[in-house]
Amino acid sequence: MRAATGGKATSIQQEIIYLLDRPAEPFFVPKGERGVVFEAPNREFLAERLRPMVAELGSRWGGEVKVPVSAVAALPDLSLPLQLPRRASFSLFIPLHRKIAARLVSIFLGTKTYEEFLSLSVYARDRLNPYLFVYALSVAILHHPDTRGLRLPALAEMFPGRYMHRGVISMARAQASILEQTNRMPINVPRDYTASDLDTEHRVAYFREDLGINLHHWHWHLVYPNVGDRKIVNKDRRGELFYYMHQQIIARYNFERLCNRLGRVTRLLNLREPIEEGYFPKLDSTVASRVWQPRHAGALLHNINREQDQLRFDLEDLERWRDRIIEAIHSGAVMDETGKRVPLSEGEGIDRLGNIVESSVLSVNRSLYGDLHNLGHVAIAYAHDPDARHLETFSVMGDPATAMRDPVFYRWHATIDDLFQMHKNALPAYTVAQLDYPGIKITKVDLVTEGRQNPNEFETFWQQRDLDLSRGLDFSPRGPVFARFSHLQHAPFTYKITAENSINKPVLGTVRIFLAPKYDERGLEMLFRDQKLLFIEMDKFQITLKSKPTANVIERASSSSSISIPFERTFQDLESPPPGMTESSFNYCGCGWPQNMLVPKGTSEGFPCQLFVMISNFNDDKVNQTPGPITKCPDAASFCGLRDKKYPDKRSMGYPFDRNPRNGVDTIYHFLTPNMLLMDVNIFFSGKTESPTP
Amino acid sequence: MRAATGGKATSIQQEIIYLLDRPAEPFFVPKGERGVVFEAPNREFLAERLRPMVAELGSRWGGEVKVPVSAVAALPDLSLPLQLPRRASFSLFIPLHRKIAARLVSIFLGTKTYEEFLSLSVYARDRLNPYLFVYALSVAILHHPDTRGLRLPALAEMFPGRYMHRGVISMARAQASILEQTNRMPINVPRDYTASDLDTEHRVAYFREDLGINLHHWHWHLVYPNVGDRKIVNKDRRGELFYYMHQQIIARYNFERLCNRLGRVTRLLNLREPIEEGYFPKLDSTVASRVWQPRHAGALLHNINREQDQLRFDLEDLERWRDRIIEAIHSGAVMDETGKRVPLSEGEGIDRLGNIVESSVLSVNRSLYGDLHNLGHVAIAYAHDPDARHLETFSVMGDPATAMRDPVFYRWHATIDDLFQMHKNALPAYTVAQLDYPGIKITKVDLVTEGRQNPNEFETFWQQRDLDLSRGLDFSPRGPVFARFSHLQHAPFTYKITAENSINKPVLGTVRIFLAPKYDERGLEMLFRDQKLLFIEMDKFQITLKSKPTANVIERASSSSSISIPFERTFQDLESPPPGMTESSFNYCGCGWPQNMLVPKGTSEGFPCQLFVMISNFNDDKVNQTPGPITKCPDAASFCGLRDKKYPDKRSMGYPFDRNPRNGVDTIYHFLTPNMLLMDVNIFFSGKTESPTP
Repeated sequence: MRAATGGKATSIQQEIIYLLDRPAEPFFVPKGERGVVFEAPNREFLAERLRPMVAELGSRWGGEVKVPVSAVAALPDLSLPLQLPRRASFSLFIPLHRKIAARLVSIFLGTKTYEEFLSLSVYARDRLNPYLFVYALSVAILHHPDTRGLRLPALAEMFPGRYMHRGVISMARAQASILEQTNRMPINVPRDYTASDLDTEHRVAYFREDLGINLHHWHWHLVYPNVGDRKIVNKDRRGELFYYMHQQIIARYNFERLCNRLGRVTRLLNLREPIEEGYFPKLDSTVASRVWQPRHAGALLHNINREQDQLRFDLEDLERWRDRIIEAIHSGAVMDETGKRVPLSEGEGIDRLGNIVESSVLSVNRSLYGDLHNLGHVAIAYAHDPDARHLETFSVMGDPATAMRDPVFYRWHATIDDLFQMHKNALPAYTVAQLDYPGIKITKVDLVTEGRQNPNEFETFWQQRDLDLSRGLDFSPRGPVFARFSHLQHAPFTYKITAENSINKPVLGTVRIFLAPKYDERGLEMLFRDQKLLFIEMDKFQITLKSKPTANVIERASSSSSISIPFERTFQDLESPPPGMTESSFNYCGCGWPQNMLVPKGTSEGFPCQLFVMISNFNDDKVNQTPGPITKCPDAASFCGLRDKKYPDKRSMGYPFDRNPRNGVDTIYHFLTPNMLLMDVNIFFSGKTESPTP
Repeated sequence: MRAATGGKATSIQQEIIYLLDRPAEPFFVPKGERGVVFEAPNREFLAERLRPMVAELGSRWGGEVKVPVSAVAALPDLSLPLQLPRRASFSLFIPLHRKIAARLVSIFLGTKTYEEFLSLSVYARDRLNPYLFVYALSVAILHHPDTRGLRLPALAEMFPGRYMHRGVISMARAQASILEQTNRMPINVPRDYTASDLDTEHRVAYFREDLGINLHHWHWHLVYPNVGDRKIVNKDRRGELFYYMHQQIIARYNFERLCNRLGRVTRLLNLREPIEEGYFPKLDSTVASRVWQPRHAGALLHNINREQDQLRFDLEDLERWRDRIIEAIHSGAVMDETGKRVPLSEGEGIDRLGNIVESSVLSVNRSLYGDLHNLGHVAIAYAHDPDARHLETFSVMGDPATAMRDPVFYRWHATIDDLFQMHKNALPAYTVAQLDYPGIKITKVDLVTEGRQNPNEFETFWQQRDLDLSRGLDFSPRGPVFARFSHLQHAPFTYKITAENSINKPVLGTVRIFLAPKYDERGLEMLFRDQKLLFIEMDKFQITLKSKPTANVIERASSSSSISIPFERTFQDLESPPPGMTESSFNYCGCGWPQNMLVPKGTSEGFPCQLFVMISNFNDDKVNQTPGPITKCPDAASFCGLRDKKYPDKRSMGYPFDRNPRNGVDTIYHFLTPNMLLMDVNIFFSGKTESPTP
């Protein structure tokens, strides 16, 4: 492998990352603040349209760090990836695009060395659609043996237009153009820029439009692609994780809605009815020649027939697929492609169903069960131009990086989740034996929040944060330009759990912490069967319970939550690794619920909730992992799993709230066994706005 | 007056024009290719948000031509203009915006000297909304005694995003950023970028989206503002011109529709029905933080209640105003504000009605007849966000610079025109005496088209043209970047008219040339009362008819048409005056139908038309003009009038096709008197695309 020459040294393995920088600028324009330039081995590497320019550019642009790129023995066949025009939009929900992306990922992963991987990537970069390239290269970097330790830059940095009001982008461009770096000031992103409170749905826009939440969703789909090489797709319990991660999103969204005096989200069952909620994303595409189309209030869905996307299906197809899936659930088995009945069993049924509903290539029978969730996204995303007569592309619902901004995302996923709940509700209830941990008793739980006088109170507020946009300001001068935006945040807190062990020996347990609203929209306490859908996972971790003294006090900080990753990981900086984080395996950590959204917003007078803490028997939780490299960030495993390992909890995801309760249990109070504890807590929203930490 | 210093000399009166260059860049950033910098007399001139930056900028940017700006005795009160936020959209159709613009125009026109005008403009520029500033400064330059000879840059150059696919803008930005000027290549603008032929309305997109047509419409509204100082608004026969110019637009649009096998446009009578035609303009706003919202197919109109625009009216208001106007027409008189009946007379009735319908401040009774045409535009422009809950602004229908792109513009203006036709149809028919010119007879007309073998054939084709976008690429490096777009064009042609004068003395006449389709949608010849609405004015000019020999042969070139201005005037270059054009009075010439759209597209097999030529008695046409400066460009007077003069034709506009025919006249053939001639001609569309002339 040849080494980089000139300028400051850059770690050799990082060079490929710079291909993700300013994706619309050709590779021979210096990348990153250090000015990394890729030196093509011959003119064949240049896309044809760029050849007339390159002589000049080499001398015009310079660049401090030259990266030699090797010639490759055989140039790759890019004919399929080239079918996506360079300035088109790219969507993981469109089957043709998925196929194209899978091919490109395969080409990248087919390389034997880092050197070859880099060469192919340089060769492909300026020929292909930039969104496609960034997606496929990101997946490939995550999975290629020679690069999978690398950190990916956050998508918000590469394509800020997908995460920011487009006005912010144009202001950033103005600053970069006329101001020296020292004179630039952060550009304020107003919190309420997509709508006013005349739109009641806007009350939860802080959730839908949260940068971290949208980055999480994009990252999740990077880690869990649904097409391509089976060994990439077929991760442990991926179908079940599809169910669980999205179920938790709906639970959290409904939680926020109740905090904001909105009813739980309505399913989008009747595909023929106008969709009441309009949404105007106000995003920009800094690369493609398009705007993100809004959905006007009262939009109707249509049959889709778009030749250039090789996309044709009817609303009836979606209805048929859904009906067949429901029939399978009600009959307890699906039919595979050979006509064989495959039971939707208590253990694996949900995983199978997840792959069918999404659908992924793991679906047992795509002819029969179709492509419900993906094409539902597509039908909604093309409501404004179902037959492409207006040459328009999809709205935010067509892209995992932006879909969660739209209120209809939750209506569609509530519909999808409903299918999973049908299956779950058909399973036998957990028996007391499956819930209890004989000999273990939780006697007390305290919630201690920094800065609050009373116990058992969460506190939330607005937090400002600065994000550097310069990596996405293609064709603007370099140097940081910051956007200052606000997001929900909470005061750090600690759970203090006192548990008695009367087993007479130390035992292992899994602490499972959930939170749910105490009351429904009418102010009444809920039945268990309703409240279980609102319990959001807050944390899950393993402990050892000593037997002497019998009372164990377990302290656990909010920052350790198994669902979340710290903000710094969500918005990692490409060129300076966050403190305390080694580079390898950093990446997987990019997937995870953003720490700042761990606690729902609550209300200024205190939103009444119930905190549920359970210690389950580790013998029933334990997973036999095959030995492998120790992952450095198991923390966000609840939603994202563990790299190259099995999902670290043998129980059904969502346990113990994933099923209807045993006979006689009407409310959560009846549900409790001694190894559980339920406690009233309140979430107080203080209303203050904290300035960015310098 | 102080003189400009340094660098190449620039004509002193032109300096103010540079304030229109790159309207979002502050005034202290060099303007134009020569680098014109305005030097503020003190820091008060800087908008507050810019003060922290200015020390650096002075030294960073330099600039070759320094323009000293004088201090002003009293800073203007900008409180009203400042009510429009800097990054908001500005619409001449919104009453508050009209009021704000009128105030700003008054402030500019209140200055006594050029020096003071310049100072105030510099002071106001970076404080105000750039669209508002450009509009008001343009109107003021057109009307201020010290500047009205100046040429304005075409709006397409200042705000290319209003005229171009937004992808072109981003490609232009990329070129400006990474390529030296010599390596830049024109960016191709595809002809069919807003829709495909699946949308039947798209067949006439070349007309709706023609750059010249949209620039004409913007320029017309600059010359004829409908609010502000009465002496600016109250131009000769302005209400009638509003009727006629828009009537001719509808006639031309219907002509194009028939060429494309589309039926004549349907009026938008029922405001409660869904609007079938969707339109996705794909334009960009390079300045404001917004996108141009599309109208999705099937959109519904709503009552409008937008507090920040101080805009509240109901669809019922529009219906009431229309009903009252119709009642006035049917009763032959309107009621003024004192309750007095003012007849809609044969002569002035149409002018009065034009001011009522538009409406302008000249309306005799705005309380009663309201603001029909303007607020109709507004209702349609806000269909997607009638109460501003989504914080969105208007669609293309809300801006005269863009409204003509949208199919619904023609539906709305067909509705408006219908009112005028009701009035016209109620007037007495022209008698033979009002039509004939005794002693004058047209014996022969030949249409000779360059490059065609047969006479009486028009020829049309596609013409490519390059337009420099750099003036509108705020915050990008300087130097020309061209967009190459195609528009309809026709081969130059000449009318050869042979007319006999048997009066025995030379007489003056006005030649009036019109063109109409020969057949309707069903392939049948039309009744006069229908065909009259389709006759488009091609030319109108004064001649002398000698009596010896009695046969006069009149030759008239297409390039002399009284409705049109040459392409070069439509797309004038700010810094280099077009050849043969002196600077003074150039400006008025910016208003006019674009020469390239003089002849409808026709068909490849030849579209059958009827060419109508008439010579009217100049004694009945003559207008007594008050003496004044001779205007250098009377050519486009048919649609735009003459600067500081009366409309140069005493007849009702549209004569002789503006009324129903006399008894006994069913078809155009019965209508003819000896001073008229009707001839079959065909329009052949060749399908070729001509490259730009170098």
